Amino acid sequence: MTSSYGTMLRLSLFGESHGPAVGCVLDAPPPGLPVDLGALARHMARRAPGRGGPWSTARTETDAPEILSGVFEGRTTGTPLAALIRNADTRSQDYAALARTPRPGHADLTGRLRYAGANDPRGGGHFSARVTAALCFAGALALQWLAARGVSVRARVAEIGGVADPTPTDPLSPFPDLSDKPLPALSDAAAAAMVAAIEAARADGDSVGGIVEVRAAGLPAGLGAPFFDRVETRLGAMLLSLPAVRGIEFGDGFACARRRGSENNDRPTPSPDGDPLHAGRATNRAGGAEGGITTGLPVVARLAFKPTPSIPREQTTVDLATNEPAPIRVPGRHDPCVVPRAVPLVESAAAFALLDLWLSSSAHRFPAP
Amino acid sequence: MTSSYGTMLRLSLFGESHGPAVGCVLDAPPPGLPVDLGALARHMARRAPGRGGPWSTARTETDAPEILSGVFEGRTTGTPLAALIRNADTRSQDYAALARTPRPGHADLTGRLRYAGANDPRGGGHFSARVTAALCFAGALALQWLAARGVSVRARVAEIGGVADPTPTDPLSPFPDLSDKPLPALSDAAAAAMVAAIEAARADGDSVGGIVEVRAAGLPAGLGAPFFDRVETRLGAMLLSLPAVRGIEFGDGFACARRRGSENNDRPTPSPDGDPLHAGRATNRAGGAEGGITTGLPVVARLAFKPTPSIPREQTTVDLATNEPAPIRVPGRHDPCVVPRAVPLVESAAAFALLDLWLSSSAHRFPAP
Amino acid sequence: MTSSYGTMLRLSLFGESHGPAVGCVLDAPPPGLPVDLGALARHMARRAPGRGGPWSTARTETDAPEILSGVFEGRTTGTPLAALIRNADTRSQDYAALARTPRPGHADLTGRLRYAGANDPRGGGHFSARVTAALCFAGALALQWLAARGVSVRARVAEIGGVADPTPTDPLSPFPDLSDKPLPALSDAAAAAMVAAIEAARADGDSVGGIVEVRAAGLPAGLGAPFFDRVETRLGAMLLSLPAVRGIEFGDGFACARRRGSENNDRPTPSPDGDPLHAGRATNRAGGAEGGITTGLPVVARLAFKPTPSIPREQTTVDLATNEPAPIRVPGRHDPCVVPRAVPLVESAAAFALLDLWLSSSAHRFPAP
Amino acid sequence: MTSSYGTMLRLSLFGESHGPAVGCVLDAPPPGLPVDLGALARHMARRAPGRGGPWSTARTETDAPEILSGVFEGRTTGTPLAALIRNADTRSQDYAALARTPRPGHADLTGRLRYAGANDPRGGGHFSARVTAALCFAGALALQWLAARGVSVRARVAEIGGVADPTPTDPLSPFPDLSDKPLPALSDAAAAAMVAAIEAARADGDSVGGIVEVRAAGLPAGLGAPFFDRVETRLGAMLLSLPAVRGIEFGDGFACARRRGSENNDRPTPSPDGDPLHAGRATNRAGGAEGGITTGLPVVARLAFKPTPSIPREQTTVDLATNEPAPIRVPGRHDPCVVPRAVPLVESAAAFALLDLWLSSSAHRFPAP
Repeated sequence: MTSSYGTMLRLSLFGESHGPAVGCVLDAPPPGLPVDLGALARHMARRAPGRGGPWSTARTETDAPEILSGVFEGRTTGTPLAALIRNADTRSQDYAALARTPRPGHADLTGRLRYAGANDPRGGGHFSARVTAALCFAGALALQWLAARGVSVRARVAEIGGVADPTPTDPLSPFPDLSDKPLPALSDAAAAAMVAAIEAARADGDSVGGIVEVRAAGLPAGLGAPFFDRVETRLGAMLLSLPAVRGIEFGDGFACARRRGSENNDRPTPSPDGDPLHAGRATNRAGGAEGGITTGLPVVARLAFKPTPSIPREQTTVDLATNEPAPIRVPGRHDPCVVPRAVPLVESAAAFALLDLWLSSSAHRFPAP
Repeated sequence: MTSSYGTMLRLSLFGESHGPAVGCVLDAPPPGLPVDLGALARHMARRAPGRGGPWSTARTETDAPEILSGVFEGRTTGTPLAALIRNADTRSQDYAALARTPRPGHADLTGRLRYAGANDPRGGGHFSARVTAALCFAGALALQWLAARGVSVRARVAEIGGVADPTPTDPLSPFPDLSDKPLPALSDAAAAAMVAAIEAARADGDSVGGIVEVRAAGLPAGLGAPFFDRVETRLGAMLLSLPAVRGIEFGDGFACARRRGSENNDRPTPSPDGDPLHAGRATNRAGGAEGGITTGLPVVARLAFKPTPSIPREQTTVDLATNEPAPIRVPGRHDPCVVPRAVPLVESAAAFALLDLWLSSSAHRFPAP
Repeated sequence: MTSSYGTMLRLSLFGESHGPAVGCVLDAPPPGLPVDLGALARHMARRAPGRGGPWSTARTETDAPEILSGVFEGRTTGTPLAALIRNADTRSQDYAALARTPRPGHADLTGRLRYAGANDPRGGGHFSARVTAALCFAGALALQWLAARGVSVRARVAEIGGVADPTPTDPLSPFPDLSDKPLPALSDAAAAAMVAAIEAARADGDSVGGIVEVRAAGLPAGLGAPFFDRVETRLGAMLLSLPAVRGIEFGDGFACARRRGSENNDRPTPSPDGDPLHAGRATNRAGGAEGGITTGLPVVARLAFKPTPSIPREQTTVDLATNEPAPIRVPGRHDPCVVPRAVPLVESAAAFALLDLWLSSSAHRFPAP
Repeated sequence: MTSSYGTMLRLSLFGESHGPAVGCVLDAPPPGLPVDLGALARHMARRAPGRGGPWSTARTETDAPEILSGVFEGRTTGTPLAALIRNADTRSQDYAALARTPRPGHADLTGRLRYAGANDPRGGGHFSARVTAALCFAGALALQWLAARGVSVRARVAEIGGVADPTPTDPLSPFPDLSDKPLPALSDAAAAAMVAAIEAARADGDSVGGIVEVRAAGLPAGLGAPFFDRVETRLGAMLLSLPAVRGIEFGDGFACARRRGSENNDRPTPSPDGDPLHAGRATNRAGGAEGGITTGLPVVARLAFKPTPSIPREQTTVDLATNEPAPIRVPGRHDPCVVPRAVPLVESAAAFALLDLWLSSSAHRFPAP
């Protein structure tokens, strides 16, 4: 299996960009959890294209999921929850041309090698970011169920095109709710400058990359394990699977590599509730994890997204018919920057991974007699 | 399960720092692969403490593995390969004191919460980097088996204490063999400056962090998958599981986030062997993967290691008996910098993950009739 | 995850009897395999209700699957293959009554305990044999792909209501193709007697059980492993998951327990092709597996199906509102015998398990350099 | 991976009959569970050869396990628990002769095909029942931990050489403790007749098979799932992996196939504790599971063991050097009946599978806020 994730809550993604539908199966959520279809639709709409802003493709999709199983009278049954999202507006271009001149930075060549030429080439097939609509659906449910237990998983645009959102001053609190902002940065001024950077790139027939930061606040301490079930491993395996991601760091990440230990350790502080094991930390350089296990402070991760490889300006590639260099201008409707739409996706993906980790960890205890 | 990794080649780690042994089971390598015990011992010795250099603990260990199963007449049998490494020289300190004052930056608190107080506290127990000796063993075998197919997996110290090894000029070739160097950087001058930085930190009762870069050259193109079996996901899940790692980036990583698409795409180049699908790339900003699938160029990853949290100089923590702040000086034999010894470990870990990915990918094809 | 099966070819089942649809995801078949929709429909029709015969429910279903992904231009893409089968004709009865008086032999009580009362009670929900339509779909594809490599997986009714089909005289050959028979036994006379037994039970408001035997011929020798990937384990985990199955035996099964070794061992015979490792066996009491690994002879398994628990005649149960005994007559459209319709399902399920085993085994070899 | 089992509690087996050791890793038991080394040794001794009785090999083994990790101060740490059992007394016979004339009923041929000739041929290598000593160890711990919660998992010899132990009259109670009996049948008279049957076979240079029945009493209702995590599936995947097993049935098993529904359904009875969902059943024909989920009644399974294939009397096989028939007399120390020693192994294996199922099921609930 290659499009599945999770241990206790298993996610199976399917679909091609220009096939009948994308979708997923969750095997299986705990029984009895409420499903808020309104909140689900609002979250999905944040990822959907055509929402406005200069970064968005012209493709219009409603991304309205149909739940096929696993929900009864508004609550999860505890059996597999399947959903699909029909693909509409799938104008398949002349992919024969594309098949001859692979797009730089795309999976055109690697996908052909991996699938022996049998994969669906239209719109990227299963490689398409379109498939992440199904991941967004799954994560939207995880977000609801975590929120009901006081956990908020929120992301912001930390940087686009070299323009940085200022670092938040309070490392111990949740992010504010930015879900109403088309470009969800903490600073509106920074957001405006990012929009300008995107506009400038588009005007040049080019694209820009950026950084998304996610903060999950309210998780209990004690989730994770020393090695391959570290919080960082579980989150990393999910978030490194998002298209266009080139790196991830936790807490202060790469900056930690330039510090001394005395500057980097988070000082334990007396427990506010009197139970000394619930000690706090004066800082959160570790990003909510020590030894791979949650501290109870916010879990923080930052993701590097590369600039959209599909750009209108001319590039050079290889003509597979002649094995000679050839010019290419990538046709189609491509965002000049994927970062704003990635924000709800990162929230979804992180929430899913953390919920699965939580459910797995609950199984580490023998149930009471 | 929480200390297991892999799909077709499953690694199960076990052991505590001050228990009888650490070890692992590999379930199972392909049958008939040669096991070179001399090369294995040389590789293990690079990770072993007491090898010299100012960064190394005084603890002496031979790290000599005993193979318990899975090898017959010098070759793998194809059944599970188990090995253990006895723990010698395990002077258990007074961990009652440590239990009362958790070390900043360690898993003392989170481990107690995770394991309900039952985990072995001596020397960090299963959280100890000592367990990575078993991972180093497993990876040493993977390195041998990959080398026999022309794949080299080599790492270098890219940075320590803010001192950077110069960026290699040729992104398309393997790293040179640095295994004889105690501090394996490309530049001897940089290595000397790194040693000085470690010495300075040690003189201050402090520690420093750094960055390790690994390059795997010679892999076939076409390994991986669009989502949760991406090269980046598989490598990330392994490498983010190493103690002290705070981030990972692939290819040019976070730097990609600051580029335009026209600057970041790797231009396809005509195939040297005449089969156009074997097209090369003019650059390797992507680090050997497009759409999560190998391109045939070197797979490149960089890992941020935090400075050793255990430092002799005084820090402040919480006294769990009183819930009041308390001073702490961490006793024991701790490296002021884990980065040099991490280099063979990163090579091992990356080789294991890539071998498992390769074996998994071979199963994507239906065997010939 | 609880409704998933498989190692290299992962099957995820979903759906409830009276929900919108049942379906599955296969993650993922090898790329480039042809999908014969006509053969698929013919195989599905054999399992569908309403096909005639006294054992069939009145419920009419077309069981027409819609493929959502993973097929392009008539061949598998190598990415996840998802399909759904809409539920039509789902007249939901008054399940409030059923909720009060649990049906003997059903999951009414255990399901409520397992799912904390949240599972869909209509028509059995995810417990319904309706879900096996999706398994039948997945297995129909496996049957096609195995057939293309010369492997036939065929089942027969070996017994119904105490009436036995005569034991086949040739243990080394494939079963004949019985797919056109509504009650696929080898002997037409036995089939007629079985039909009579079903009719008699129905006339009494009762039901009967039986035995299905499956024979998979043409598999290569060498598939499986000594312990948890034995052919018997892999097949057993699949076939014991079918509703109403109470036991499984391989080869001569329980009869072996009453023999002496000299009577039970299959004598190796000289290889017909000259390679001595391709030795045959004079008999096939072992059912095609020695040490858990295929011998190249037909793999043979027999499955015991209990009589349908839902019967019109009056039984006694408990009234959950009063905790007192209460009479019950199970309403609804239930087959008086599930065995005839189970035959294509057993073929499907066995084929899926064997294909997955084959693909897994191919990964045990390191790919050629 | 091919020698691993389990979901939340993962067992990894390793070892060859004539290698340095057999052993296992459990990844990982819940933390804080007591480990009773005395009870462990007593349980292991029941499986050990040389215990007396005519069925036992002359090979003497102490089967004393060394725990390598995961236990601290007499309790589980919650991290992986590894143990090994050294192989002593491993007189390797001339396996060159065996390699030329494969033993009928053994994995000599299939193992060579599966492992391309690289597997350890001495004493059967990893195919050897010797490896089950490690499984017995793992299960002995599971038995202890289940017993502490009121669950008894006990097996009896139900049949040997055609001699049946009488069917127990009370299907709802645990089996009595038979662990002191060398041949643990309920009836001493039947046990004596079974011993006579074994003696007679041995006198003829032959062997006999038999049936083991296991009963697990005291499990909570509600464990399992409708499809691939059925109690039957989980138990079946474990028990069908034991060497020499040819079939398994649950509850009344194959006998159910010959009944009518009205004869086979277990009638629900009023709950003894007043909570109607805790309804009992008047009978236990289903063997403790409805819809794949525990009812709270004893879980019952019966296993068919074939007669030992290694027998002193002459048989015919193939000479691999000539591809001609050749006589063979299997040398070595082989039990004329494996069934008595299989009893503690079946208890171990079943306990392990049920504990893993229980731990997995606990993860189906979202932990309380």
